[in-house]
Order: sequence, then structure tokens, then C-alpha cells
Amino acid sequence: MKPREHFDRELQQLSDSIMLMASRVEEELSIVLAAYERLDPTLASVVSDLDRQVNKMRFEIEERCILLIAKQQPTARDLRLIIASLNMIVDLERMGDQAMNISYNVGHYRADGEVTMQLNLPSMAVLVKNMVREALDAFMKDDVVLAEKVLQSDDAVDQFKNNVFNKMVEYMKSHPDRIESALDMILIARNLERMADHATNIAEDVIFACTGEDVRHGVGKAAREAQEKPN
Amino acid sequence: MKPREHFDRELQQLSDSIMLMASRVEEELSIVLAAYERLDPTLASVVSDLDRQVNKMRFEIEERCILLIAKQQPTARDLRLIIASLNMIVDLERMGDQAMNISYNVGHYRADGEVTMQLNLPSMAVLVKNMVREALDAFMKDDVVLAEKVLQSDDAVDQFKNNVFNKMVEYMKSHPDRIESALDMILIARNLERMADHATNIAEDVIFACTGEDVRHGVGKAAREAQEKPN
Repeated sequence: MKPREHFDRELQQLSDSIMLMASRVEEELSIVLAAYERLDPTLASVVSDLDRQVNKMRFEIEERCILLIAKQQPTARDLRLIIASLNMIVDLERMGDQAMNISYNVGHYRADGEVTMQLNLPSMAVLVKNMVREALDAFMKDDVVLAEKVLQSDDAVDQFKNNVFNKMVEYMKSHPDRIESALDMILIARNLERMADHATNIAEDVIFACTGEDVRHGVGKAAREAQEKPN
Repeated sequence: MKPREHFDRELQQLSDSIMLMASRVEEELSIVLAAYERLDPTLASVVSDLDRQVNKMRFEIEERCILLIAKQQPTARDLRLIIASLNMIVDLERMGDQAMNISYNVGHYRADGEVTMQLNLPSMAVLVKNMVREALDAFMKDDVVLAEKVLQSDDAVDQFKNNVFNKMVEYMKSHPDRIESALDMILIARNLERMADHATNIAEDVIFACTGEDVRHGVGKAAREAQEKPN
């Protein structure tokens, strides 16, 4: 096998492991969603097991990237791809942490279906799940248009989060005895929003890698947040 | 100049730019703290200017790292240092985002000194500021003992956050008219805790780079969170 073919095969294997890691994170999010809809707190331990795998995968992939760079001394273009992969696995790992944070709170929902009914968090979770899927697809296919779609979806997620916040503040005012449950909803919405932020980071990296246009500072997350309600 | 000397000089320049970026982030945190203590919402725009610089620096340093790897084809050890630097600048940039999030809320404090008085958030902010400083020192000096101290401080920050949460929940129950202000305090404490998490990430990277011991999954953040109250 020629050196380039060998390297291409190694890059393909890297890409495959990232997809496997990503599918575990998506699974975490699906289980969180199922736990929420069935009000089943026992699913949290399944998420926790998956998250351990995700964390382990991150460090295996990081190690693989380092060895790949050291052995193959890639060109600038291949190197950028590997660096983008390194950034991406950090975002994936942090998404998993958010899913786990949400899963801890599932027990509370059971206790307070009345608060849960006020909101439509599953729709928000589905939106976030789609963003994660699309950010990964954009990465795999170098698809700038899809990456830009992810950035737009992030605004919808922020609106969702603001809506949850405002509704729950009003609810707490009229139901001071249900403050803890309402707070849980606010925190879950924020965890979902942080997952969406990580998907956005991935999409921004794709746009940068493909076009050289750095959307990461400019209309980047922090700058966008400056324009919206700070909650 | 010998190639190794030249490379060492480039590594030193990289290290200098990271310290400059870090000092900007520390500055952001100091200004947030001053804004909080003086109840001065106008300082938020200063934080915003600094944060723009921080974001720009991240991408300049990332670019410098990529060129350094491509040109110098570093050994595994040097490569690990550069990869650790890449991880670190992401954490620094996100810390800056958190500082900016907090600065947006400063206006609220003015409106509700009574809620502010219930807590000691400046002490929490000082604790986080020290963690950031120590994590950077640990990185610069390869100091594992100092890095471990950062991990321990993170537990204290988590306790602070839980304390703010519990106190504010009680306060909201007895003062439903002050729910928004109390919520701001909870969110600020969570932003500070996230800054501390990023300092912890840096410390964990230092321990990994120096000892090969991967504290990042095991007693890593997510695993530690699993043992504490999930709010």
C-alpha cells in the first residue's frame, strides 16, 4: 500500500471512530428524551454508562490523532482536519456531560407532572437532537449549507430557552410551593441550550475548515448572545 | 540559530501568547467582580471589548499552533504540549464567554441590593479567580501539585454554588415578588462554577501531560458531578 493510501485509511478510521462516539452521544440524548416522556428515572443509569464510554472514546481518539500527526507529518490541509477532529471530540464529550446532567433531574419530573405540562421540553430536545445530527453530517460531508442551517437552528433553541425561563418565572410567582420543580425546568432548558451550543461550535468549525471564513468570532456564539436577553 | 533553538523560541512565543490571552480573561473576571461590588453596569461594555480580543487571540494562537506543527514536525512530547495548548485556549475562550454572561446581569444587582446582600458571591468569584491563576501557573511550570490543588478548589466552588441555590430557593418561597433577582444570583453562581470547570479542565490536562495519569475520566468533572447534588 502506498503511504498516501495508508494515511487515507487511517484518516477514514479516525472519522469512523468519531462517528461512533457521536452516535453514543445521540443515544444519550434519546434516552434522556425517553426518560422524560415516560417519567422513568431509572434510565439515568443507562445514560451514565454511555457517558463513561463517551469519555473514554474522547481520550482514545485524542491519542490516535496525536500518533497520526507524529507518524504521518500531515500537510496543512490534513492537519487542519485532524485539529478540527480534536476540537470536535471535546464538544461531543461536553454534550454527553450535559445529557447526564439532565438525566439526574428526571426523578423530579415524576414528582411534578403539573409543572412539566406547562412546557414542551421534548420538542426542544428534538430540535437539539436534529442540530447534533446535522452538525455531524455537515462535518462528514464538508457541507457548508447544512452547517449554516445549524447556526440558524441555534437561534430557535435560544428562543425556546427564553420562553421556558419567562413561563417558569410567572409560574413560580403564582405557585411559590412549586419553585424547585420550576427551577428544574429552567436548568434542563439551559442544559439543552448548552448541547445546542456545542453543535454550533462544530458547525462553525466546519464553515471555517471549508471556507476559511471565521464565523467563530464575529457572529460567533458570544457575539450573538450579546444581542439577546441574557438569561 | 540551530533548528532546535529556533523551535524552542517558537514554543516560548506560543507560551507567551497564551499567557497574554489568559491575562485578558483574568482581567475580564476582575472587571466583572468590580462591577458587582460597585453595582456599576457600565463596566459590562469593557468586558465585552476584552472578550472580543480574547476570541481573536484564540484563533490567532490556533493558527500559530497549526503552522508550528506543519513546519516543525515536532516529536511526540512537543506535539503533546502543542495539543494541550490548543485545548487550553478553548477553555480560556469559554471562560471569557462566562465572564461576559455575568457582566450582562450586573444591571439587575443595582435594582435589588436586598437579594445581593443575602449571599457572598464576591468570595466565590475570588475563589474562581485564584483557580484560574493557579491552573495557568500549573500549566506554565508543569506543576502537578498545584494542578491537584485546583481540582480540590473545584469542590469548594461546587459547594458555594449549591449553597447559593438552596438559599435562593428559600428566599424565593418567602419573597415571590423577588424571583427574578434571586434567579439571577443562581445563574451567576452557575456561570462562576462553569468558569471553575474550565480551570479544572486545564489542571486535568496538566496532570495528564506530566504524569500520563488520566484524571479526565475517572475522577473527572462528569464523574464528580454524579456524586453531588445535581443542580
